[in-house]
Amino acid sequence: TLLGSIISSGPGWPAAAAAAAAVETVRPKDSVTPGLRWRETSWGCRSTASPVSVLQKFESHNSVSWEISRDITILTPESLLVLDFRGLGLERWLVLELAPQLASQTHSLPFEFRALEAILQHKVNTLQTRLNDVEPVILDTLEYLVDPKILSADRSKLHVLLQNSKSLSELETDIKVFKDSLLKILDEDEMIEEFCLTKWTDPRVFEESSLGIDHCEEMELLLENYFMQAEELGNKTRELKGLIDDSESVIFINLDSHRNVMMRLNLQLTMGSFSLTLFGLIGVAFGMNLTTAFEDDPRAFWLVTGFMFLGSGLIWRRLLSFLGRHLEPGVPPLIPPIWKRNTKLSDIKPGVR
Amino acid sequence: TLLGSIISSGPGWPAAAAAAAAVETVRPKDSVTPGLRWRETSWGCRSTASPVSVLQKFESHNSVSWEISRDITILTPESLLVLDFRGLGLERWLVLELAPQLASQTHSLPFEFRALEAILQHKVNTLQTRLNDVEPVILDTLEYLVDPKILSADRSKLHVLLQNSKSLSELETDIKVFKDSLLKILDEDEMIEEFCLTKWTDPRVFEESSLGIDHCEEMELLLENYFMQAEELGNKTRELKGLIDDSESVIFINLDSHRNVMMRLNLQLTMGSFSLTLFGLIGVAFGMNLTTAFEDDPRAFWLVTGFMFLGSGLIWRRLLSFLGRHLEPGVPPLIPPIWKRNTKLSDIKPGVR
Amino acid sequence: TLLGSIISSGPGWPAAAAAAAAVETVRPKDSVTPGLRWRETSWGCRSTASPVSVLQKFESHNSVSWEISRDITILTPESLLVLDFRGLGLERWLVLELAPQLASQTHSLPFEFRALEAILQHKVNTLQTRLNDVEPVILDTLEYLVDPKILSADRSKLHVLLQNSKSLSELETDIKVFKDSLLKILDEDEMIEEFCLTKWTDPRVFEESSLGIDHCEEMELLLENYFMQAEELGNKTRELKGLIDDSESVIFINLDSHRNVMMRLNLQLTMGSFSLTLFGLIGVAFGMNLTTAFEDDPRAFWLVTGFMFLGSGLIWRRLLSFLGRHLEPGVPPLIPPIWKRNTKLSDIKPGVR
Amino acid sequence: TLLGSIISSGPGWPAAAAAAAAVETVRPKDSVTPGLRWRETSWGCRSTASPVSVLQKFESHNSVSWEISRDITILTPESLLVLDFRGLGLERWLVLELAPQLASQTHSLPFEFRALEAILQHKVNTLQTRLNDVEPVILDTLEYLVDPKILSADRSKLHVLLQNSKSLSELETDIKVFKDSLLKILDEDEMIEEFCLTKWTDPRVFEESSLGIDHCEEMELLLENYFMQAEELGNKTRELKGLIDDSESVIFINLDSHRNVMMRLNLQLTMGSFSLTLFGLIGVAFGMNLTTAFEDDPRAFWLVTGFMFLGSGLIWRRLLSFLGRHLEPGVPPLIPPIWKRNTKLSDIKPGVR
Amino acid sequence: TLLGSIISSGPGWPAAAAAAAAVETVRPKDSVTPGLRWRETSWGCRSTASPVSVLQKFESHNSVSWEISRDITILTPESLLVLDFRGLGLERWLVLELAPQLASQTHSLPFEFRALEAILQHKVNTLQTRLNDVEPVILDTLEYLVDPKILSADRSKLHVLLQNSKSLSELETDIKVFKDSLLKILDEDEMIEEFCLTKWTDPRVFEESSLGIDHCEEMELLLENYFMQAEELGNKTRELKGLIDDSESVIFINLDSHRNVMMRLNLQLTMGSFSLTLFGLIGVAFGMNLTTAFEDDPRAFWLVTGFMFLGSGLIWRRLLSFLGRHLEPGVPPLIPPIWKRNTKLSDIKPGVR
Repeated sequence: TLLGSIISSGPGWPAAAAAAAAVETVRPKDSVTPGLRWRETSWGCRSTASPVSVLQKFESHNSVSWEISRDITILTPESLLVLDFRGLGLERWLVLELAPQLASQTHSLPFEFRALEAILQHKVNTLQTRLNDVEPVILDTLEYLVDPKILSADRSKLHVLLQNSKSLSELETDIKVFKDSLLKILDEDEMIEEFCLTKWTDPRVFEESSLGIDHCEEMELLLENYFMQAEELGNKTRELKGLIDDSESVIFINLDSHRNVMMRLNLQLTMGSFSLTLFGLIGVAFGMNLTTAFEDDPRAFWLVTGFMFLGSGLIWRRLLSFLGRHLEPGVPPLIPPIWKRNTKLSDIKPGVR
Repeated sequence: TLLGSIISSGPGWPAAAAAAAAVETVRPKDSVTPGLRWRETSWGCRSTASPVSVLQKFESHNSVSWEISRDITILTPESLLVLDFRGLGLERWLVLELAPQLASQTHSLPFEFRALEAILQHKVNTLQTRLNDVEPVILDTLEYLVDPKILSADRSKLHVLLQNSKSLSELETDIKVFKDSLLKILDEDEMIEEFCLTKWTDPRVFEESSLGIDHCEEMELLLENYFMQAEELGNKTRELKGLIDDSESVIFINLDSHRNVMMRLNLQLTMGSFSLTLFGLIGVAFGMNLTTAFEDDPRAFWLVTGFMFLGSGLIWRRLLSFLGRHLEPGVPPLIPPIWKRNTKLSDIKPGVR
Repeated sequence: TLLGSIISSGPGWPAAAAAAAAVETVRPKDSVTPGLRWRETSWGCRSTASPVSVLQKFESHNSVSWEISRDITILTPESLLVLDFRGLGLERWLVLELAPQLASQTHSLPFEFRALEAILQHKVNTLQTRLNDVEPVILDTLEYLVDPKILSADRSKLHVLLQNSKSLSELETDIKVFKDSLLKILDEDEMIEEFCLTKWTDPRVFEESSLGIDHCEEMELLLENYFMQAEELGNKTRELKGLIDDSESVIFINLDSHRNVMMRLNLQLTMGSFSLTLFGLIGVAFGMNLTTAFEDDPRAFWLVTGFMFLGSGLIWRRLLSFLGRHLEPGVPPLIPPIWKRNTKLSDIKPGVR
Repeated sequence: TLLGSIISSGPGWPAAAAAAAAVETVRPKDSVTPGLRWRETSWGCRSTASPVSVLQKFESHNSVSWEISRDITILTPESLLVLDFRGLGLERWLVLELAPQLASQTHSLPFEFRALEAILQHKVNTLQTRLNDVEPVILDTLEYLVDPKILSADRSKLHVLLQNSKSLSELETDIKVFKDSLLKILDEDEMIEEFCLTKWTDPRVFEESSLGIDHCEEMELLLENYFMQAEELGNKTRELKGLIDDSESVIFINLDSHRNVMMRLNLQLTMGSFSLTLFGLIGVAFGMNLTTAFEDDPRAFWLVTGFMFLGSGLIWRRLLSFLGRHLEPGVPPLIPPIWKRNTKLSDIKPGVR
Repeated sequence: TLLGSIISSGPGWPAAAAAAAAVETVRPKDSVTPGLRWRETSWGCRSTASPVSVLQKFESHNSVSWEISRDITILTPESLLVLDFRGLGLERWLVLELAPQLASQTHSLPFEFRALEAILQHKVNTLQTRLNDVEPVILDTLEYLVDPKILSADRSKLHVLLQNSKSLSELETDIKVFKDSLLKILDEDEMIEEFCLTKWTDPRVFEESSLGIDHCEEMELLLENYFMQAEELGNKTRELKGLIDDSESVIFINLDSHRNVMMRLNLQLTMGSFSLTLFGLIGVAFGMNLTTAFEDDPRAFWLVTGFMFLGSGLIWRRLLSFLGRHLEPGVPPLIPPIWKRNTKLSDIKPGVR
């Protein structure tokens, strides 16, 4: 849904309000600034769901339009127009929070600084909030999944993990887009100057408010500051992705280890069963209805039975010790440990002057 | 197949039509613009299947040739020549859609802007369509494959996934090529100026149509806009690739978990079989045709049988509890949880001024 | 082996032939161009196998030396010297194909353009041929390996795959080196000018042949064209590498799935064996030479036998249904599907203006 | 906690001390330098836990503020203000070590050089210490985990590894942030000049102290030096990450190998059990209470028993040899070894001139 | 250990020797060149193990100091000072090889060129030697490990592989550092000029030796040449790393395939055992001391025995054929092969003009 919110400060308010009213009705074709025109084209193709994509060109030519990761913002020295094609609850924020914040005249800096800061702060806050939503869930899920006591990964936890790592990579993309749009402005000095609207439009206010302050430099610091905050968020997401990868390796090693342990137990029992079957064959043989010489020998039963049990026990023990030897195939102790020659690191000690 | 479509607007039409007719017959050698000449060489080596690679140099020197990811487009202020060596159904699009679109004189901007926009829009649409084709299939397949209830991955689904991730990486390459060709123009200001044909050829029209509009800046905005759309598509494909990777990890963990669960069940049953075999040996022993002292003792049968069943039951229970202890090898609870010191994130809360 | 092939065109031929003859004998120390001198140093360390590394400095100072991925080429307006330290069959190509090609005077462009184009074309063709050799083998091998019907990967196929992916990464390196050497020239405008030899040495020919053609721009287009062909090859190899990676994942999932299926079958049979052993114990008990009350009961045999078979059958069925429940651990259906909120993609439909 | 430590040298000390005292009380709104103002904003949002975020603007305009990976430092020619919002024990370092170090007037270079060097050295030392903490633990853990004698990975070791690789990636991020902040200064020559405070403020001292020394170049060397130290640390962490990855592959191969060995043993025993069961069936058959012709044949018992044992032994041997053949599926020896054609490397021998 | 080796040529020898003698004793504080001073600082913190870190400033101001991957080299027109804090056997090389090499006056180029070339050549040779040490070991180990006949990877081979891939990544880092230090000089033209010492200090020698040779260009070619050699080494290590990765995948597939084959055999035997147990139960039943109607029927024994063996054989065969069907779950042949539409590659044939 298209949303044109205008928040103005000072004498420009009525005019801006009128412009806001006009947003829904006017669609000038030829008088539109070309820059806006082409963006409109792209909006057109993006917002086919929304009925109309209307754009108001203000009388004063001193507006700056800017796209912060897909939300287009138009800034004049006296009013702020936010065009929101997403409807991400931005409206409530605009009306409830931004307006009073910008209306308070306590700050000495021109309107465009305050407006820009508010928008950037809101954007960074949104990204931060999304990270704050995703991070604890991922950490909890991983903490649960890497638990070495677990034999098999809980499938619903994996589901949660997959959902959240999808959200995480979407967040990463959005942070990257936000950073790129800031970087594009920071890389070109003239774009920064364009943002300093008051400097060009209102020389009187400009001289009055800035007592030797360079507006452009200030603007650069403002943008840089938010760029660094975005970068910090980006680092955070990158670390989180790395943590997921590392944890998956640990989960695999855990599962494999469990399997190996179970397989060894299984093998030991199979050895036992084999011994019992082998010596049980003697019992089966004596159980045949065939004449042996020992039918009436009273000691024969105990001898054969004892042989059966003792024999299978002995064979089992032999097999177990064979297994033990087989699984530790005498790696020659000559092979040196791998990292011992890495001791050269330690001599790069932090120097004390 | 070589396809030379010329769409013109305004007075240049007949000349352009004649040129189009000449495309098949004329092959000037020395008068060709060098730039075109070398490209022709490369076409020659690419289109060995097509019989001839003919290229028409227009009388007016005001043409711009441009290669949008392998389709070469030549643009003059009054006509548009699209050279298509692929035959990807571009012809139908040209005749049915582009011509009427460009013919409509409702727009105030010069012809080259409208033509360029139409071509770029078509290109982006094609890429978008390919992504729209691939994405739902991949998502459905993954949704099916990560289903935790599935014991073994469906092999035909894997086939579909492999086919689509191949298409996806081809799409990624095409998006990258498209972005690079746009970026190359955007990086050089003089190349952008070259595209503003009207500005140089038709000063009268130029002054008339542009009421203070800077053609170059407008051209830059146009190209930038489509660059950003392409970047968005690129981000989308990258996320999709990441999702496939993440899902594969989850599939592996799922399969491994299933295997561990089955292996534990198997091990438990092997334990049961072992106990039964062990105590069954007693029965076998008593089944031997050897004299024991208990042949006529009426309680002996019940005692021995009871001992067999109870004994194997008890041993099984011992083995099971041993397994339980063995698989949870008392990780000392002293080890702190891994992520608890990560709480410093939470104090970087979104600030309210 | 050192190979100095000189191919000249026009009046310079005898001189160049003489120079070619001199290649093997003359080794001037102080008159050598520094650029060549230092390269000679590097050649010296590369070609220790070859007896001598001789280098001829031509009388005319208008030569350009250039290293196309390790083969050094020296170009003068009238002759072309290719120094090949590899002996990769380049000799045959030079004598049989390049010479007649360059000798034909049908082209209007100066000699250095034709020579450079021939060399670049040969280089690209060589890379393309290597890719054409490797690609179908890899595709066939992968096609065979990802076949879901295969229980275990054919080890000889794996061998072939490993060999070819090694060739592929060598090819990738060579393409990268070729691209880098082209890019280095393209990045510096003065290096491009250096290549336009005729422009500087033969102003008469220059003015005559170039009817308003800018040699430098033409040279740039020529190099750019081959750069793009190389990039296309690079993209192809990258996609192929990605395909190998994806296929390996699919192979792993296939193998794991097979294993899980076999393990379930194994588990089901183990359950059957367990049931049979358990109830077989009854038979063993009755087979003991101990007195029971049922020896002469004619129905006892059928009762006990029936109990044995029916009991083991029932127990097996219980165990199988337990397995079925155990492997599908009621994931609560509340968990939403993962990708459903991804529907926002679909509303970025390709816009029709 | 906010911490304003001021360390001054020379005549400026009392004034700076007074300023330090004022830090807690004064909060000028309009006279603040814009650069500081915007940073204050960001501090505000970072340090919501801390009660106030106060900032003192010094009288002299010759201060430089700089953010070394999140700690803000303000430098004047005569005093150094470190603003620490983290409380990472920086206070102790400031008071105990930095102050006496800076107070000693033995060095010939201006104050800002010594202060900057001390801060950078402290920062690098901190990073180095963290690496020194993490590295030996990781190496020890990996050394233990890749031990080929281990059947299943120790889960507590894995826990330790995961914790430390998390610390490592946090360290990597911090090194990257530190390097970026240095690189940003090094990339802009004018920012380096800004740091040479003495040059601009105290020309007399400047000319006196620097006997032909270029302050800017010196500053660049100073920063470059610490940049290279940070890069070395970055290389170290990268290598360590690679080592963890390689070790994980080795761990997996180890675990898989163990499993294969156990599975072969298991299979061999299963073959034995199968043979015994098969021939045991003969014994069971003869144990049936059914009339055979051999009941009274004294040799029958030995013949049948011998047949049972010998037969199962023979069958087992057949099965084992079948297994041996089955697992080595005659890969044709025609397939050449993979790397033999790689011998071309050896002829790029280090050349001796 | 600090090692100051001075190798001079020509008349400057005695003075340089004296300076070398002074290295151990003099430590001027204020007269040191700033550039050296700061490096000294960093040396100080690196070489805390070495007792002193002394640095001699030469009388002539025409020295250039340069850091080739951690070894600092100071070059004057007449002498060469190598400061080695590592003691990697550099001393022997310096005394035995470099000195006579530089002393020979056969070359026409100034001293600094020869010295620089010797140092770079030595550095490249060292890197090449390390690669030559590591590469054959890795190739042999991989060749052994990917052998498809091997059931389980040899653990000592894995150990060797891990050690060598660690050496390889250390080598990779060193090559990168070397390349970066060369690239830093190549990127700044003025740094290259600084290296041409003779040009600035000894105009007479300069004009004499260089007959129209541009020293700077020559220096650039010299550095570029060694940069390309280093890049070639870098490519080699990268390929080797890729080969290790690919081989690990193949090892995993091999191990998995072996496991699947063994598991199928195991499953087939388990099926056999199950059949035998099932029909053996009949024998056990008839072995019970219970009255059946068949005790005296002479055919009964043969009938029941035959039924037991035939029945278990039949059941086994059914189970085996069931297994065969189960593992090949009729993938519909409708699914097209994956890569068939990739035929478009083949039409990009190498063009013949």
